[in-house]
Amino acid sequence: MVESFSSVSRKVGLPPGSLVHIGEMLESEARITIIDYNKDTIEELAVESIEQILPYRDQDTVTWVNIEGLGNIELIGAIGEHFNIHPLVLEDILNTHQRPKLEEYDDYLYCVLKGIALAEGRFGVEYEQISILILNNFVFTFKEKQDKLFEPVKRRLRASKGHFRSQGADYLSYVVLDTIVDSYFTLQDSLDEIVDLIEEELLTDPTTETLTNIQTVKRELIYVRRSVSPLRELLNAILRSESPLLQEKTLIYFRDISDHVLRISEAIESTRDMVAGLLDIYITGISNKMNEIMKVLTVFASIFIPLTFITGIYGMNFEYMPELKWKWGYPLLWVTFLAIPVMLLIYFKKKRWL
Amino acid sequence: MVESFSSVSRKVGLPPGSLVHIGEMLESEARITIIDYNKDTIEELAVESIEQILPYRDQDTVTWVNIEGLGNIELIGAIGEHFNIHPLVLEDILNTHQRPKLEEYDDYLYCVLKGIALAEGRFGVEYEQISILILNNFVFTFKEKQDKLFEPVKRRLRASKGHFRSQGADYLSYVVLDTIVDSYFTLQDSLDEIVDLIEEELLTDPTTETLTNIQTVKRELIYVRRSVSPLRELLNAILRSESPLLQEKTLIYFRDISDHVLRISEAIESTRDMVAGLLDIYITGISNKMNEIMKVLTVFASIFIPLTFITGIYGMNFEYMPELKWKWGYPLLWVTFLAIPVMLLIYFKKKRWL
Amino acid sequence: MVESFSSVSRKVGLPPGSLVHIGEMLESEARITIIDYNKDTIEELAVESIEQILPYRDQDTVTWVNIEGLGNIELIGAIGEHFNIHPLVLEDILNTHQRPKLEEYDDYLYCVLKGIALAEGRFGVEYEQISILILNNFVFTFKEKQDKLFEPVKRRLRASKGHFRSQGADYLSYVVLDTIVDSYFTLQDSLDEIVDLIEEELLTDPTTETLTNIQTVKRELIYVRRSVSPLRELLNAILRSESPLLQEKTLIYFRDISDHVLRISEAIESTRDMVAGLLDIYITGISNKMNEIMKVLTVFASIFIPLTFITGIYGMNFEYMPELKWKWGYPLLWVTFLAIPVMLLIYFKKKRWL
Amino acid sequence: MVESFSSVSRKVGLPPGSLVHIGEMLESEARITIIDYNKDTIEELAVESIEQILPYRDQDTVTWVNIEGLGNIELIGAIGEHFNIHPLVLEDILNTHQRPKLEEYDDYLYCVLKGIALAEGRFGVEYEQISILILNNFVFTFKEKQDKLFEPVKRRLRASKGHFRSQGADYLSYVVLDTIVDSYFTLQDSLDEIVDLIEEELLTDPTTETLTNIQTVKRELIYVRRSVSPLRELLNAILRSESPLLQEKTLIYFRDISDHVLRISEAIESTRDMVAGLLDIYITGISNKMNEIMKVLTVFASIFIPLTFITGIYGMNFEYMPELKWKWGYPLLWVTFLAIPVMLLIYFKKKRWL
Amino acid sequence: MVESFSSVSRKVGLPPGSLVHIGEMLESEARITIIDYNKDTIEELAVESIEQILPYRDQDTVTWVNIEGLGNIELIGAIGEHFNIHPLVLEDILNTHQRPKLEEYDDYLYCVLKGIALAEGRFGVEYEQISILILNNFVFTFKEKQDKLFEPVKRRLRASKGHFRSQGADYLSYVVLDTIVDSYFTLQDSLDEIVDLIEEELLTDPTTETLTNIQTVKRELIYVRRSVSPLRELLNAILRSESPLLQEKTLIYFRDISDHVLRISEAIESTRDMVAGLLDIYITGISNKMNEIMKVLTVFASIFIPLTFITGIYGMNFEYMPELKWKWGYPLLWVTFLAIPVMLLIYFKKKRWL
Repeated sequence: MVESFSSVSRKVGLPPGSLVHIGEMLESEARITIIDYNKDTIEELAVESIEQILPYRDQDTVTWVNIEGLGNIELIGAIGEHFNIHPLVLEDILNTHQRPKLEEYDDYLYCVLKGIALAEGRFGVEYEQISILILNNFVFTFKEKQDKLFEPVKRRLRASKGHFRSQGADYLSYVVLDTIVDSYFTLQDSLDEIVDLIEEELLTDPTTETLTNIQTVKRELIYVRRSVSPLRELLNAILRSESPLLQEKTLIYFRDISDHVLRISEAIESTRDMVAGLLDIYITGISNKMNEIMKVLTVFASIFIPLTFITGIYGMNFEYMPELKWKWGYPLLWVTFLAIPVMLLIYFKKKRWL
Repeated sequence: MVESFSSVSRKVGLPPGSLVHIGEMLESEARITIIDYNKDTIEELAVESIEQILPYRDQDTVTWVNIEGLGNIELIGAIGEHFNIHPLVLEDILNTHQRPKLEEYDDYLYCVLKGIALAEGRFGVEYEQISILILNNFVFTFKEKQDKLFEPVKRRLRASKGHFRSQGADYLSYVVLDTIVDSYFTLQDSLDEIVDLIEEELLTDPTTETLTNIQTVKRELIYVRRSVSPLRELLNAILRSESPLLQEKTLIYFRDISDHVLRISEAIESTRDMVAGLLDIYITGISNKMNEIMKVLTVFASIFIPLTFITGIYGMNFEYMPELKWKWGYPLLWVTFLAIPVMLLIYFKKKRWL
Repeated sequence: MVESFSSVSRKVGLPPGSLVHIGEMLESEARITIIDYNKDTIEELAVESIEQILPYRDQDTVTWVNIEGLGNIELIGAIGEHFNIHPLVLEDILNTHQRPKLEEYDDYLYCVLKGIALAEGRFGVEYEQISILILNNFVFTFKEKQDKLFEPVKRRLRASKGHFRSQGADYLSYVVLDTIVDSYFTLQDSLDEIVDLIEEELLTDPTTETLTNIQTVKRELIYVRRSVSPLRELLNAILRSESPLLQEKTLIYFRDISDHVLRISEAIESTRDMVAGLLDIYITGISNKMNEIMKVLTVFASIFIPLTFITGIYGMNFEYMPELKWKWGYPLLWVTFLAIPVMLLIYFKKKRWL
Repeated sequence: MVESFSSVSRKVGLPPGSLVHIGEMLESEARITIIDYNKDTIEELAVESIEQILPYRDQDTVTWVNIEGLGNIELIGAIGEHFNIHPLVLEDILNTHQRPKLEEYDDYLYCVLKGIALAEGRFGVEYEQISILILNNFVFTFKEKQDKLFEPVKRRLRASKGHFRSQGADYLSYVVLDTIVDSYFTLQDSLDEIVDLIEEELLTDPTTETLTNIQTVKRELIYVRRSVSPLRELLNAILRSESPLLQEKTLIYFRDISDHVLRISEAIESTRDMVAGLLDIYITGISNKMNEIMKVLTVFASIFIPLTFITGIYGMNFEYMPELKWKWGYPLLWVTFLAIPVMLLIYFKKKRWL
Repeated sequence: MVESFSSVSRKVGLPPGSLVHIGEMLESEARITIIDYNKDTIEELAVESIEQILPYRDQDTVTWVNIEGLGNIELIGAIGEHFNIHPLVLEDILNTHQRPKLEEYDDYLYCVLKGIALAEGRFGVEYEQISILILNNFVFTFKEKQDKLFEPVKRRLRASKGHFRSQGADYLSYVVLDTIVDSYFTLQDSLDEIVDLIEEELLTDPTTETLTNIQTVKRELIYVRRSVSPLRELLNAILRSESPLLQEKTLIYFRDISDHVLRISEAIESTRDMVAGLLDIYITGISNKMNEIMKVLTVFASIFIPLTFITGIYGMNFEYMPELKWKWGYPLLWVTFLAIPVMLLIYFKKKRWL
């Protein structure tokens, strides 16, 4: 799906920090879930309002607030106010055309990136913007859609017998980021499979639809790449960060994500190279087909045009044409009619046209 | 519209700092408006001469002088003199072929960039040069055209209940820059739509005009990119600047513009990739059409040329041609006339030419 | 062989450090061999369990543990535990989709790269992941396959009369790395030969299979390059490393590998350029063939179509056609039948079509 | 004009600093003019020998020695000797294949670049090498040709009422550099016009000459770019220079030139992109023409070949051909002769071939 | 000539520093010449063994040992031993697949690069590896071939009246390097001439051989570039070097070589661009030729096919065909036979096909 700026114009002329949702609204409602945990306890609940979130601020536990759907602008405004978030950050959360980036503030880190998934239809890729706010004992995640992307994180939290739940908010945000980046591999895998399918189609039975498919994959790769490649900077920014919110021992995990991002970036580049090769095959295929068509025409025409000329000769009405009276004239001509094609066929065979 | 250097030659040989207008003159007159404000008051007025501007110098308020049209060279010279602006800066303001850039001086910052808008006609893009001078409590903006580009800024100033009007000149210049950059998104959006239109045209009914359109979009993208990509450096220069004219707390807003510029740059690159793909489709389309034409020719020729040869045989005037006397000769021939095409059609069908 | 991510999904949702084998399992079993040596003694043995490895920890000798096959996950877990290896490293060893990289830890260095070899079949390239753990007096190497890649290293260890065996673990890992990188030259050499073969084929007898071959080589080069180019960073990381595990005097050897990697990278780039040229030759070849075909058609048609027209004239049944009664009409026509082709052939000769 | 190295071989084997003219000799004689000035006085004279130059060394005034033509090698040697110039610099002045660069010495700066101008003929671009030596109160300029390039500088010197003539040698060299760079804009402008002309030609009446023109412009752009792009480094070197020969207040003027160089570089890149697009149009144009030709052939052949077959049928001489005796046979056939083309034409119309 | 790695495999598994010749052996013998000089004296002699070289070690003079041919491995080993050269350096000298590079050691500098020359045959380029060892008062040069490349250096040494011979070993190595780099200009010149020849051929009489030539030049340029471009780093390494072996005053000479290398690199890039353009001309030429062929076919076919149809009509044997009896039928038909071609020719003329 092409990222469209058309709704940006709605924003032109508003003061910075005005909370307006920009971009296609994927969910009109916001579903808010809280998971609060420490080494020993874990508590999950669905909440409706900011008041239910605030009490967790004063606890020692790590609290993860997951907000799915950006429809509830008041809520986001309230979070901003109570947790002292810069208006520009709130604006970025609501404007779903962000370029992946990390912003460091004194009390929190703001990280925004894209969740990408293959759409149900054959080639469509679906994007959603995911914002992560990392505070001292709090992690807010803002997603555009209500889906199961974070299910594995929750499962692991519930199952954790110590390691995970004894870590801080930075570790939680690592797991969230890792889960998102892992989902890119699934996507990349599907794209590679599609490219293989197209290649097979090209070699067996290319149609004009094949060309459209090549173009579509090419286009999707342009967009996927645009979502993935800024992640390198994002991860570098995290690794270079000196924010006290990120503990030394957690950085090694972010380095691991950084490796994944490099790998996925290179894989996308390879796929792009491959797709460029597909077009070459397609164009060459057309030219080869043309050659084949022309060969058939040339063979037919070269054989029958001279023969027809000969029949033309003896179809003329001249009074004096001695051959016409020869007894063996007609049979001899048949010999010619057979000899000429045979000779030409041998010639074409030699030229490897047959 | 192609940026033309033809008028540069007029300048060759003049001393640096000579105030001469260079570039196509879009407005012969200059319209000057002043907005002077602080937290509590706001005053708007149209002025005609430098004398009306000078009194604001000694006030604590922020004063924005917006000059639309570069025709009044004396005025610009006078501003330079009274506000102590370097002659080279004045020269750059008047020479509308500047590359976007930031120049830092002790008492002021000079920032020049392009305002871009889609022209009324189908594909034309119109450029105007916008210069911004940021002084302590003064902001000068110089535009080539009289248009409504800064309307939103003014509206916000008038509507501001505190935040905006309690900020300094640096915040005002941020809002101005932001407004300009936001207008790029509108343009990019339109270009993307045009590309989509062309692609649709290509797949349904490509004409030679389609090719011209592709070339035009390509060309426009080259120019737009040339106007946009130096903005990255410009913003970086602002962010790295240690000028006391830019307050720490305002820099975060410029960082926001910087993100926008990155995004628009990437969007332009994607569109360029897309346009390159269009040309591939076009060329492939031509080849496909050629194949189709050749198929029709080959099918017709391959079917009828052998048949004509056969009619030629029995049109010959040999005295001894026994077949001519057979009762079933003619009907049998008709069977042949039907059998050959059927066989060939089956053959072509098998080759997927039909 | 295309690197596939399909098995990555199995991993999604697992905690980091979970030991699961990811990637195609090339060997179900692990073959473990130990070579323990110092200047004076050398001992080689095959072991089955971690317990047999541990005693060597307390010795002064250098111990090389070579594990071929990643099927024995418990073993790898046990090594991690006893030698205090970070869970993420163990995870990377088992996940065979790593990008070549170096990771420095306090007590050990972790280095992962690809072993590449031409497959038995004509164009296939086979990859295996090789992990190297460099500890103080220990080197662990983890390979996916049981093959003879490290044979030369062992041979040299056995034959060493002093130099090699009097060096530390860092020198051993240098020799291992060097052996792997040297094997790339063999591969690159083979690819170059394949390219030469294809070029010869192109100039003598190109078929559609030739195109498939070009695409296959192109694709393999994309993958080989993806395995080789990160090695530059890896070597740079080693050279810049300040780890006490790498002695000053050994670095010069790693610099030598670094030169090799640069050379192999450039060679791959050259081969890629060459392959791109092959496609140009192929496409040009098709066009040339088309020209030849069209020439034959045009020559035949241009000669015989006018002649057939002439026979058509005198095959008409008009009552008043004086030529038909001329005595020399028919012979004169034969003169024409010979003159026209001769003239046309001279014309075509002049145009260099024959 | 292609820069040729053929004369370099003459130099091979000579000691560095040997004064030999290398490159095509554009002027056999050297014309030397001196302009000596300070705020109050200005003196212009043509000189013949080094002795006439030396007295100015001891004066406080700025002295500009302009040498047009590199034929007088003794003079250049003498300048080197008296002004203590490094032999390699003298060698570079005489070897007209220099890459634009700045070299800093303790007592002087050496700066070499290309003067470029459109030749009289249609597409030729002419190059000359210009060397600038900046000493304390002296500026030497060495040009290959005697032309009017520096006329504007002289005019401004004569007309200056203070500013220019009260500056030092660094300002003079700025004006000289600025004049040279300004002349690039004129050239770029002409190239752009040529590209526009070619594009128009392409869309109306492309010939093979058009292709030659495209190639020529492409080639010239390669050379122009090679002369212009190193200027960026040259200017950067000046801006970063800490030489006492360049005053702080003059650097701002060099920054202005630096902007111009960036602009001209980007303009050249855009023109290159445009020229690359021209080739696409040309190739597409050829393919379109081919399609048109094939359509005409196919339409003619498809219509008349079946009709000719029909006439062939009734030209046969079978004894039993009942149709021949039908009274309406012939007229009915005419109906067929009209119906078939009409049907085919409708079919072709539908396919948009007509 | 393609650089081949095939002989590298011979090395796989050998300890680093094993002295084995790798690469094609160009000379089986080694010719060793010594030139020993200082300001006042110069001595040249051919030597056979290391013992003859050693005495010069203790003298104040500069000694240049030039070894042509790498066949005498013992000698090189002995030099390594007596002059304390690192085994890896000796290995690199003997392995002729080195990438150009500089290596700094405490007591000496090792510098390796390629000597390139056009082979006798038309397009072949010949490479030899040249290693330079710069010690305190010693310079060793190792060449693969016995040729006249260093003749100019020797001539200058003999002719020097002071400057050259009063400099140290660093100056000698500068002159050697300079001589090698100068020879690249000769080569580049020849390649440019070849490109010009091919272009001329393309515009007058392109054959398939022309394409092969283009590919060969392209390939040679890939290799030449691979030999030249690492020289930039090499020179930068020299210029940044703080080795006491390189005197401050000599560095300026190396900077001069550095300029040459930049120039030659840019020239190669330009030639590559030019060659890429040649292929475009070639392909366009093929398409143009095809158009011409098709035009001839179309003109012939379009003119004669309708005429033949008309003759077919009046060749039919219908009993009732009134035209056949008209007196003016046949002459009128001749008018038609002339009118149709004239009309079509006018039409084709208008379409600019003739």
